[in-house]
This record gives sequence, C-alpha cells and structure tokens, in this order.
Amino acid sequence: MSESPITPRGKDFATWYQDVVLHGDMAEPAEIVKGCMVIKPNGYAVWERLQRELDDRFKATNHQNIYLPLLIPQSFLQKEAEHVEGFAPELAVVTIAGGKELEEPYVIRPTSETIVGHFFSKWIHSYRDLPVLVNQWANVIRWELRTRMFLRTTEFLWQEGHTAHSSHEEAVEEVLRILDLYAEVSEEIMAVPVIKGVKTRAEKFAGALRSYSIEAMMQNGLALQAGTSHDLGQNFGRAFDVQFQSKEGKLDYVWQTSWGVSTRLIGGLIMTHSDDKGLVLPPKVAPRKSVLVPIFRKDEEKAVVLEAAAKLAKDLGAHVDLRDGMTPGAKFFHWERLGIPVVFELGPRDVASGNMVIKRRDTGTKEVIPQSEAVAKQAEILDAMQRDLLAKARQRMQDNTVLANSIGEVEEILGSVTAEKGGGKFVMAHLKDDPANDARIKEFKASVRNIPSVDLYDGPGKCILTGETVDRRVVIAKAY
Amino acid sequence: MSESPITPRGKDFATWYQDVVLHGDMAEPAEIVKGCMVIKPNGYAVWERLQRELDDRFKATNHQNIYLPLLIPQSFLQKEAEHVEGFAPELAVVTIAGGKELEEPYVIRPTSETIVGHFFSKWIHSYRDLPVLVNQWANVIRWELRTRMFLRTTEFLWQEGHTAHSSHEEAVEEVLRILDLYAEVSEEIMAVPVIKGVKTRAEKFAGALRSYSIEAMMQNGLALQAGTSHDLGQNFGRAFDVQFQSKEGKLDYVWQTSWGVSTRLIGGLIMTHSDDKGLVLPPKVAPRKSVLVPIFRKDEEKAVVLEAAAKLAKDLGAHVDLRDGMTPGAKFFHWERLGIPVVFELGPRDVASGNMVIKRRDTGTKEVIPQSEAVAKQAEILDAMQRDLLAKARQRMQDNTVLANSIGEVEEILGSVTAEKGGGKFVMAHLKDDPANDARIKEFKASVRNIPSVDLYDGPGKCILTGETVDRRVVIAKAY
Ligand SMILES: [Zn+2]
Ligand SMILES: [Zn+2]
Repeated sequence: MSESPITPRGKDFATWYQDVVLHGDMAEPAEIVKGCMVIKPNGYAVWERLQRELDDRFKATNHQNIYLPLLIPQSFLQKEAEHVEGFAPELAVVTIAGGKELEEPYVIRPTSETIVGHFFSKWIHSYRDLPVLVNQWANVIRWELRTRMFLRTTEFLWQEGHTAHSSHEEAVEEVLRILDLYAEVSEEIMAVPVIKGVKTRAEKFAGALRSYSIEAMMQNGLALQAGTSHDLGQNFGRAFDVQFQSKEGKLDYVWQTSWGVSTRLIGGLIMTHSDDKGLVLPPKVAPRKSVLVPIFRKDEEKAVVLEAAAKLAKDLGAHVDLRDGMTPGAKFFHWERLGIPVVFELGPRDVASGNMVIKRRDTGTKEVIPQSEAVAKQAEILDAMQRDLLAKARQRMQDNTVLANSIGEVEEILGSVTAEKGGGKFVMAHLKDDPANDARIKEFKASVRNIPSVDLYDGPGKCILTGETVDRRVVIAKAY
Repeated sequence: MSESPITPRGKDFATWYQDVVLHGDMAEPAEIVKGCMVIKPNGYAVWERLQRELDDRFKATNHQNIYLPLLIPQSFLQKEAEHVEGFAPELAVVTIAGGKELEEPYVIRPTSETIVGHFFSKWIHSYRDLPVLVNQWANVIRWELRTRMFLRTTEFLWQEGHTAHSSHEEAVEEVLRILDLYAEVSEEIMAVPVIKGVKTRAEKFAGALRSYSIEAMMQNGLALQAGTSHDLGQNFGRAFDVQFQSKEGKLDYVWQTSWGVSTRLIGGLIMTHSDDKGLVLPPKVAPRKSVLVPIFRKDEEKAVVLEAAAKLAKDLGAHVDLRDGMTPGAKFFHWERLGIPVVFELGPRDVASGNMVIKRRDTGTKEVIPQSEAVAKQAEILDAMQRDLLAKARQRMQDNTVLANSIGEVEEILGSVTAEKGGGKFVMAHLKDDPANDARIKEFKASVRNIPSVDLYDGPGKCILTGETVDRRVVIAKAY
C-alpha cells in the first residue's frame, strides 16, 4: 500500500488542511494571482449546494436577488468615515481602462454597502417603498497579506444581503432573522455547530452600529467566524442621503442591514469534519452521495458484475466507477479523499450471493448487506452520518469550552495555542465590551469572538479586567 | 386613464427598449460606473431561469463548474498575439492594491482563455487527463464606448466553458454540441429562433481557429449574436505550453474550445417579444407565471373575495396581489409591464357565479372561465403562449429575410437601416470568406453575421464581390 498523500492532523494541522483541500479536488492556490485560489469541481459543487440551501431560505423570507456593479467610484468609500478606514488598506484599484488613465479611479468592491446606499437613495422615497430586501451573489476583493485557501483569500465568492427599513426595530428583527437562518444552514446542513452572538464594538463591521456573528470551532480548537449580520443603523442612510417620507409625513433616514456568508464556509466545513484520510462531507452538502466500485478479475466476471452494478446503482442514485487501469484499492482511496459519504463494493461473489459491501466514510465501518436492503440501508447511513457528524462536532466544542475567571487564566489557556499545534479552546469569561479590553486580549493574539445571544453559563459576573459587573460571559479564542 | 410610460416601438425603438427594461424591473443604468447597469429583481430572476436551463444541460453533458480568479497578470494577455490585439483596447487595469503600486498590473478578465491556459498546463500531462470539460459562471469587464443595457455593458455576467481534447475532431464535436445546446435553450426556452453558423475569419474570436455563433433577429430587423462557441485549435495550447503525452507516447499540444452566453441573452429576449405595453416573457423564462388580482369595493366583499382568491391561487401557483391603496387597473398595468404571462381577475360576482377572468399577456385576450377549469386553462394558455411566441418570431424572421445577388442590392436594402427606425433585414447573399469582403460590407455599417450551418437556399453561387464560386449564401445584416 502506498503512503497517504495527506499529512496527519496531529503532525501539522495547516499542512493537513492544505492536503485535504488539494486531494479533495476542492481548490488549489493560484500563485500567479496574489492570495487567490482556483475553486475546483468538488469545491464548486459544494458551494452550489450551499448556495441552493441559502438562496431558497432568502427567497422564502421575501428577499430578491439583484446584481450591482463590481467597480465602485473611489469617492464612495470616503462617504462613511469608519467604513473607509476599515477597508482602505485592502482595496484593489483600477486606474486605467479602455487604454486611458481614469479621472476618478474605481475600487473593486470589498463589499457593496456604499453602492447600495447610492441606489437605495434613488429607489426609496416613501414608507410605501419599504422594506427593500435584496441580496446579491458576487465576487469581492480584499487585498489580504496572509491567505489560506477558502478561509481567507484576496478574492472570494459570497452573498451579500442589503435591506432598508422604516424603523430600527424592524431592522434589528431582520438582522436576527438572518443570523438564525445562517445558524440553521450551518448546523442542519453543514453539521457545523455555532454560537450566535453580538460582536464587541472593537470587532464590529466598519460602519455598523452592531454586528452579529456565528462562530464555529475547528478541530484544532480555533474559532472561525462563519457568517455576519450587521445592524447598520442610519449610518449609510445618512452618508448616502437615503431618506423616506414616513406615514406621518416626516422625512427620516432609512434603517439598514447587511449580512453575508462566503466560500469561507467551505473552509470551516473541511476543518470541522475531515480526517487523516482526507475530506469528509456531511451528506446534505455532498454533491454526490454514493459511488459503487465494481470488482472483477476475469473478463467473464466483468460482464456479470457490471450488469448487476448498473442495476443497483440506478436504484441507489450512485455513480459507478468504471475507470480502466485502476485497481479497486486505488478507487477506494480516491473516493475517500473526495469525501463521498457512502461507497459500495460489488464483486462476483456478491453477485452470486445477492449481497454487497457498504462502507461509511466518517466511521470507516464496512458491512455486508443483502442487495435488496441497499436502498434502505443507504438512506439510513446518510441520515445517521449527518446526525453523528453534528453530534461529534458539538461534543468537541463542549469538550473544548472552558470557564475562566481571571485574565491570567485566559492567557494561560490560550497563550501558546497555534493553528498548527492546535489545543485551542473557547474560553468563557466575563469581560466588558470596551475596545481597551479587546486590545488586552489581542496582546496574546486571541480575540473576543462574540457575546452569546443565549447565556448557557452563570449569568452576570465581574469583568476580568475592570471588575465592573457585566451581563454574561463572552467567548474568547484564537481564531482564523 | 394615465398615459403609458412606454414609448411605442414605432416612434423610437431604442427608447421603447429602454422603457421596457426600466418599467419591467429588469435593469437600470448605473451612471456612476461607466457603461454598467444594476440588474433589478425581475431581470435577475430571468437570468436565474436561464442559468438553470443552461447549467442543467452543461452537467448532463459531463461539464463541471469551477471558479478562476477575476484578475489576470497583464503579461498573460500578451502570450497569444491575436488575443491581446483583440482585447487590449477594452481592458480595465488594476495598478494599485493593498495601498501599493503593483510591480505587474493585473487586468480584470475580459474572458479567461489565458488563465485557463495556465492552469490547463498544470492539470494536463497525459491523454488520460483528457478531455477536461469545465465551465464557470462569472462577471467580466470589457471597456466599451457605446453601451446599452443587457446588450452591451462594460461589466456583464456570463458563463464561459473551456475544454481541452486530445484531437481536433473531438474538439470540433464539442464546439458543435454546445452550439446546438445554445440554439435549443434559445428556441425552446426563450422562444427566440436563431441561425446557427460559422463566423467569417474577420469576425472570429481573437485567438480562435474558427468561431461559431447563433444569430437572432430583433423586432427592428437587427441581428443579435446570442452565443458563440470557439474552436481554439492549438493556439492557446501552444501559447501556454499545454502538452500531453498521447497513447502512442508522443507529446502534442491539446486542442481547446471555449464558449459563452451572457446577460445579453436577456436583451435579445426583450427585443424579440415585448410590445408597446411593456415586457413580454415566454412562460418558460417567466420567474412568476401568473398573478391573481382580487377586486372588491366594500369591506363585506373583501373577505369573501380574498378567501376565494387564496384558495384558487394556491391551486394555480399564482401570486395574489393584496396591495392596498392601488386600483385594480393600476395593478393590471403593473403586471403587464412586468411581463407576467397570465393574470386572473376575481370579483364578488365571479365568486357568486363560480367564474373568473383569465387574461393572456401576449395577445391581450380576456376570457371568462369556470373556476373549476382554471388550472387546466392556465396550463393550456402557458403552453400556447410559449409555442405562439416562437412561431411569431419565426414568422417575423422569415418575413424579413431576403435574397440579394449583388453588392448594390445588399447596400440598397441595408444602407439606411438603423436601430431606432428599424426596417432591418437578414440579407442572404453569396460572399467569399475574406476579410477584404467583410470590410466592404462594413462600409455601410452592416456585417456578415455567419455562414449558416444548414443551407436553406440555393446552394453554391458566385461571390457578389469577387465572382468566385462559394458554397452557400451568408447572412448579412445590421447588428447590435
Ligand atoms: Zn425622491
Ligand atoms: Zn507534467
């Protein structure tokens, strides 16, 4: 048996991740374009599955898709002070077009709040025009220094929702509705448990009043911000003069929200479930649920096996691996690395006995079953796998969540954690939402992930830095 | 009754088109970004319908979706001489990123053959790696001087397929398979008849050996190139050193193809079917097939009508227009302008009699029908409308196709045709495929659209410019 091309997690988590991504046909680095990747067929098919799940939910909650220009006049970014400060260092700027230097350069969108503000001011005049609930599926560019496939790339694919409302209350409802929707897709479809909560002021989106996030835990214990939903208040409404006439005839600025998830979700998916054999995909995101590998040596066996295989595969919705010049063993490894949830084997003796072998990707369990039960068994295994992957990830998160009651304790737990070595924890501590406190946490390269929406711990307590009483514990962790 | 906001076709075709696009909620110009548009909800929903139809067919023919970087190193464009010549004048160039001047600027992809060439050379080594059949859904930028919503915008959305094969024969099969697929979606889904054929050498894609197109006729008689499929030969293989070892152990360059359709299709759709009342959408591309407008005056009528409406709408899959403060008349005009194929009316007397009114968008026909037959009647009308729109467009194309046997005749027919005034024709003439001949046709602002794959006319004849015998007549027209 040849050696696995996948570096074990325990040896080097970062290299393991890269190996899983490459051998899972998920992506590869595009060295010739700084910090970009090519999303390969298996990776893009997973993205399409996630798009479908998200988009169906957006539409069911009355959002409509639109498409806005990629390029934004540079001056637009300046209009909201915090926003430009947040994004200016990461912009890619078009200065030449059609053979001429441009009078005003364009930036490639790092996100679209500014151009949305411009169009909202054209579309919205009266309370009758509200709410406006739109979303776009698009690419964005943020010039990052350190990149990692899916988790942080200079170009990435995402959806960005943008809404305008006539009251702050309604906007906040929208922000939380979307946060719930993101958590649902993450947990029920991706089998990735998350903590919903509000970001600290120091960590909020540049230009928002408040930002909410879902935070997941990777196998090395690092946190991953998997989605964000922002209460923009009237900041962009004011910056872009988006005013509406209320029912009472008064002029007011609209209340806006924005929210997004990106191809980063795929990185979180991989880092949550995969193992030393390669990619593991929860059945609900697996583009292909099962594959059947026919086994035969002699030509007379081939015909019999392939005939039975074709029939079974049809009922199972399975792909039959007919590749010539490849051993069954090599085929098994191939599908294992691609994260196919269920792989069947069918050889001449199976055909004779009416049996077949079914193998489950996450547990590696192999079982001989009657062919007549294959369809039911497959459905059962797919269900169980979806459920078990979530339960396992939940258990891991629970096992690696600890309480701390002093800054010394937090630093001791997280200080030496790295992405490569692992050992990360979610440390629950009482901490006041104050940028000075965030800065202290950043000294040991951790951060406040969020202030959970639901307090699962002991309620109010004294801030570990200022001693003031705060409402509940926050999540502190090292993060991607 | 208020005046229609839509300029009649007969008055000014270009303004009519713009009015239909705007009032159909299809798109609006994004003046702040040169030549760009915002694709509005109805327009984007039509694009999603087209994406679904195309993507299903790509997958059924074994293509896989991937995603490649938006930015391309400027030097890549130089590697294929014809390609750079064709695209250089239209490039948008990123010279600054992350706050620094770039050592090598990037161009925003105008199309991805060059970056595909780079990756194919990494992925392909042996005949075993072939064919490679990939596609991407993406945005591209071409800095155009004269733009028109959907038909020609500096940024547009499209799909670009890229394939590599071990023989020219197989590549040509792929090119023609995709051309057929495009024609099928155009005719069967969009109800837009097209002429399949090969472009002249002067009109082919920059870097291709041969380009094939589907050409449609708009209501003003102008041609629209609705999709292209290119036989790239070994040009990009050579430029990017994409070599493979053949079965016989020899090294050879791969044979490549590329093919694409874009949001331009939507422009063609609108210009083929819409009328002076606004947008007309063939049922198969209409995001919403039917709407029910309930009619009532008094409060006691309202309850009865809405209850019956909800029940009927459920069976019909129709949206019920419940907007307050809007007359039924205003609602009818609204749905008419949005191109909804079928609109139902239901008033108190209808509820009492068990009837309802059904109105068909393209013909304007109104009919009173029993509620019990509404589902069947709706299906029948949607079918008929899909069929009739194609037949009508076919008839128009036939009526406006003429033969010409001298250059004088061609010029006389086409010389004074403009997009605004209309009167365009497809002129079928014998013409040799020679750039000098294309240049002569361009003198009166017409062009050779393609050399049809199927000759529907009189076979070989003498070229109207050189007198040499050529195989068949070509299509000459003014075009978008
Ligand atoms: Zn106004
Ligand atoms: Zn090689």
